[in-house]
Amino acid sequence: MSPHIRNTAILLVKTSLRRGIAAAITEFIHDHGGHIVYHDQYVEPEEQLYFTRIEWGLEEFTLPEPDIAQSFGQSFATEFDMDWQLYFSKVPQRVALFVSKISFCFTDFIARFASGEWNIEIPLIISNHLDMQYIAEKVGIEYHHIPITNETKPEQEARELALLEEKKIDLIVLARYMQVLSSQMIVRYPNQIINIHHSFLPAFRGAKPYHAAHAHGVKLIGATSHYVSEELDKGPIISQDAIVVTHRDSVDDLIRKGRDLERLVLSRAIRNHLQRKIIVYNNRTIVFAD
Amino acid sequence: MSPHIRNTAILLVKTSLRRGIAAAITEFIHDHGGHIVYHDQYVEPEEQLYFTRIEWGLEEFTLPEPDIAQSFGQSFATEFDMDWQLYFSKVPQRVALFVSKISFCFTDFIARFASGEWNIEIPLIISNHLDMQYIAEKVGIEYHHIPITNETKPEQEARELALLEEKKIDLIVLARYMQVLSSQMIVRYPNQIINIHHSFLPAFRGAKPYHAAHAHGVKLIGATSHYVSEELDKGPIISQDAIVVTHRDSVDDLIRKGRDLERLVLSRAIRNHLQRKIIVYNNRTIVFAD
Amino acid sequence: MSPHIRNTAILLVKTSLRRGIAAAITEFIHDHGGHIVYHDQYVEPEEQLYFTRIEWGLEEFTLPEPDIAQSFGQSFATEFDMDWQLYFSKVPQRVALFVSKISFCFTDFIARFASGEWNIEIPLIISNHLDMQYIAEKVGIEYHHIPITNETKPEQEARELALLEEKKIDLIVLARYMQVLSSQMIVRYPNQIINIHHSFLPAFRGAKPYHAAHAHGVKLIGATSHYVSEELDKGPIISQDAIVVTHRDSVDDLIRKGRDLERLVLSRAIRNHLQRKIIVYNNRTIVFAD
Amino acid sequence: MSPHIRNTAILLVKTSLRRGIAAAITEFIHDHGGHIVYHDQYVEPEEQLYFTRIEWGLEEFTLPEPDIAQSFGQSFATEFDMDWQLYFSKVPQRVALFVSKISFCFTDFIARFASGEWNIEIPLIISNHLDMQYIAEKVGIEYHHIPITNETKPEQEARELALLEEKKIDLIVLARYMQVLSSQMIVRYPNQIINIHHSFLPAFRGAKPYHAAHAHGVKLIGATSHYVSEELDKGPIISQDAIVVTHRDSVDDLIRKGRDLERLVLSRAIRNHLQRKIIVYNNRTIVFAD
Repeated sequence: MSPHIRNTAILLVKTSLRRGIAAAITEFIHDHGGHIVYHDQYVEPEEQLYFTRIEWGLEEFTLPEPDIAQSFGQSFATEFDMDWQLYFSKVPQRVALFVSKISFCFTDFIARFASGEWNIEIPLIISNHLDMQYIAEKVGIEYHHIPITNETKPEQEARELALLEEKKIDLIVLARYMQVLSSQMIVRYPNQIINIHHSFLPAFRGAKPYHAAHAHGVKLIGATSHYVSEELDKGPIISQDAIVVTHRDSVDDLIRKGRDLERLVLSRAIRNHLQRKIIVYNNRTIVFAD
Repeated sequence: MSPHIRNTAILLVKTSLRRGIAAAITEFIHDHGGHIVYHDQYVEPEEQLYFTRIEWGLEEFTLPEPDIAQSFGQSFATEFDMDWQLYFSKVPQRVALFVSKISFCFTDFIARFASGEWNIEIPLIISNHLDMQYIAEKVGIEYHHIPITNETKPEQEARELALLEEKKIDLIVLARYMQVLSSQMIVRYPNQIINIHHSFLPAFRGAKPYHAAHAHGVKLIGATSHYVSEELDKGPIISQDAIVVTHRDSVDDLIRKGRDLERLVLSRAIRNHLQRKIIVYNNRTIVFAD
Repeated sequence: MSPHIRNTAILLVKTSLRRGIAAAITEFIHDHGGHIVYHDQYVEPEEQLYFTRIEWGLEEFTLPEPDIAQSFGQSFATEFDMDWQLYFSKVPQRVALFVSKISFCFTDFIARFASGEWNIEIPLIISNHLDMQYIAEKVGIEYHHIPITNETKPEQEARELALLEEKKIDLIVLARYMQVLSSQMIVRYPNQIINIHHSFLPAFRGAKPYHAAHAHGVKLIGATSHYVSEELDKGPIISQDAIVVTHRDSVDDLIRKGRDLERLVLSRAIRNHLQRKIIVYNNRTIVFAD
Repeated sequence: MSPHIRNTAILLVKTSLRRGIAAAITEFIHDHGGHIVYHDQYVEPEEQLYFTRIEWGLEEFTLPEPDIAQSFGQSFATEFDMDWQLYFSKVPQRVALFVSKISFCFTDFIARFASGEWNIEIPLIISNHLDMQYIAEKVGIEYHHIPITNETKPEQEARELALLEEKKIDLIVLARYMQVLSSQMIVRYPNQIINIHHSFLPAFRGAKPYHAAHAHGVKLIGATSHYVSEELDKGPIISQDAIVVTHRDSVDDLIRKGRDLERLVLSRAIRNHLQRKIIVYNNRTIVFAD
């Protein structure tokens, strides 16, 4: 399997809805010889905001890649007040994996990486335990064992931040990393840290959600992948799914059934992020069509 | 469509797990010439409780129907300390429908009733509004308009209770009845009042769950059918389901999508109840195999 | 519930992908003062075809409604070779319902119509039986009893076609109408006849799909809503869904479980059609984002 | 994660429904001091067959394990004409994995094995290619590279059969093994070979089902796990599931989305088999409650 890397540019835009905005962006691409391969948009009705993701082939685009951002910025700086980002599909994203002792989300990520499902690099794995080191060694990825206690947390997170900076990390994936990140790290990587929580948020925030689900006698269990924000388990939700459970299912059964669900939900969220399909607005995510 | 009414007896049992309990019950049926058409059971592992639902044909059963309960009680009274109920499938259950102004759960119930999907009678409909009266008239069901205000609530609920008693009601279905029932009524009909709540409980208890779901930016919405207990929206969950929503869905879209979900979830819960498939234990439901 | 009828125009376009096409359409709307409330598009990668659905508010649109089509046609006739349709949201669509003896899809449709879920008119119901007439009478819709035998089929279908013409029908819904339509009618209403088939097509084409599913021991049953084409059960699929079944489920159970599924799948297909979200291409449907 | 291996005996029974059958089996267990932890049963209504799975703890069971089968056989040989198997939960099952070049079902299986999810041993992996050998080496499992051509097939399958015999294999899992097995092997391992097919059978039998699904424009894709029988892709279905796809999904997208589905469906089927939850009857599976 190859990741089918395309030679495209992707523009994500958030702006207030004004007439002509969609036309202006498509004209910009058209005028420079780009042909659009993807265009999805969303109009937020209450505040009349316009969000779009537009992707076009670069083969015959007349602007050199390094000049696109500047040219786009100039074209629209005066006319529209936009938040926008420009990405190039062929540039692999640099992902740091955080893991503790629970392996299944971690190994799923590694397997998808190894199979070439995603166009990423993994410059480092960070863990507060040694348990996953042997897997990192097998696939040849740096593994930093950084144990965390209440006392050492500030110092150890400083080490982590230094590593993340050094490795020019674009995205942090918490693959069942059982530590709460400090505000410092969350602020440094806004909407760049993806977590998987093993419940259908906002139900069962915090620790031991499967135990709580069992005690409540729910007939479905869920999993939620979200960006990490400063409020615990309250960041913008990217992906959720749920499966049927019954009275027969013990807490251990929920944990087992949940594993398959968590892997799926986390990997979908990661895919959407990597494909630049997500814009965060008002603590909610706009996830453009897959 | 006919409801496929079977001439069977159904026994629901809850007891502490003792050796021989399953054998004893099956022998009782066997010894009197009954052939078992359904047998499901559940062993609660922590408290070692035994729950079973067993159903057998009455065609060649040698005990007359009126004697079965007494005979079963005597056989096991000395040996096992059981909670048990005996039901006969051919006896239609008497259902009271409570409704306010929102029609879709109500009309779905009426349509299923009219099609013969369930072996029930509906001796009366109670509503705090007049909106659904014309439908009741079309199908020829008594409609009692009992408006409720804070001041009149005790008096009006007393009227309702008198009607329910008079009509020998077995089951109350709150088909989007927007009033909170008083403790008095809940205590009188334990695990006999089924409600539909338009969220994936325990998330979004109380009023306006679709608005809350929208504000949270969830990617699934749910519906929950449960028995009404004294704590609001905390009674034993019978059935839940969820469907995908996206950032495009306004609150109105959630309401629309939720309607189909609510109808399904409520009707599944009602079906399980009518088929005597549910035992409540520890604020959770055991729902035997469908 | 009100249908939330918007005062918008909807343009559906299919054309070969050429640079500037998206820009040209958005500019047309922009230049006449329209603000876009929905824009979804799809590029078919193999034949490089461009499909779009664009919807804009008419409140401040400077072209009078009767002139929009002509103006759009002229603007693009020379430049682009387009298949396009223009619709106005506020114009109710005129739906003919065909039904036989099975009621559940029919009554679901009627209930949704009665609740105002859809902006439609139902000028007539056609049936080869009398069974559903009493429901039609209740809601005050013309009911034409047109029995069909092999001998009378051509003549009776001619009567039906005359009625459909007379009533200016836009859409025909086969709500479990058990007759195979003749080619003549199918050709007259291309992609305007929606059928519900009670299987996960292409599995179990033709008669008695639940019996076939049961015989195959499948663990899911499905339902498929599709446009009717000349090959039986092979028209473009609009909507499909599936639910879990087990070895316990008899054919009757499949029929019962399937009813809820069929209603949902059919109503989703109808909604997509009514909202002008569907373009048929190459015997497949493009269904724009809901 | 530990596999939570229980010290229980499991009895699977198929027999014609006679009064007293359930009582007789439960009494046998009861009389020897066994306490039942699981009991599910199914009555096939047309042929009046009785199927049951009963599991009981061995800690205080008074019969020695080696005597249970004989004792049970003698007790019921005269009275009931039964097909039955007795299993002990603590005995690990010996699984042979067959794989070709496609890795994802294979690596998923290996990951579940490595995590201790299942109480199994994998004495050997057989492949017609060398691609997966490096993974087998990492986890220390014998890997037999047995290439197959039309000419060499009989001889190579004979080698495979010899290896399977030598290793006392209980279950063969075809983890996307792209060869059709010969009748000889299928007959030797009846209902002991589990395959995953990447469609919702019976739709899209044979090669390239995702291509066929794409061409048909389906709105769901499925996966099916089944026992291998002599007719290609027609063996008893164990597990099926489906997910939503849209017109946007290319064949490559279906393949990608299907991977997650196939893994899930295959692993559920394997779990049911390993837990002795399946009885095959009439080319259908009875899968007792999970």
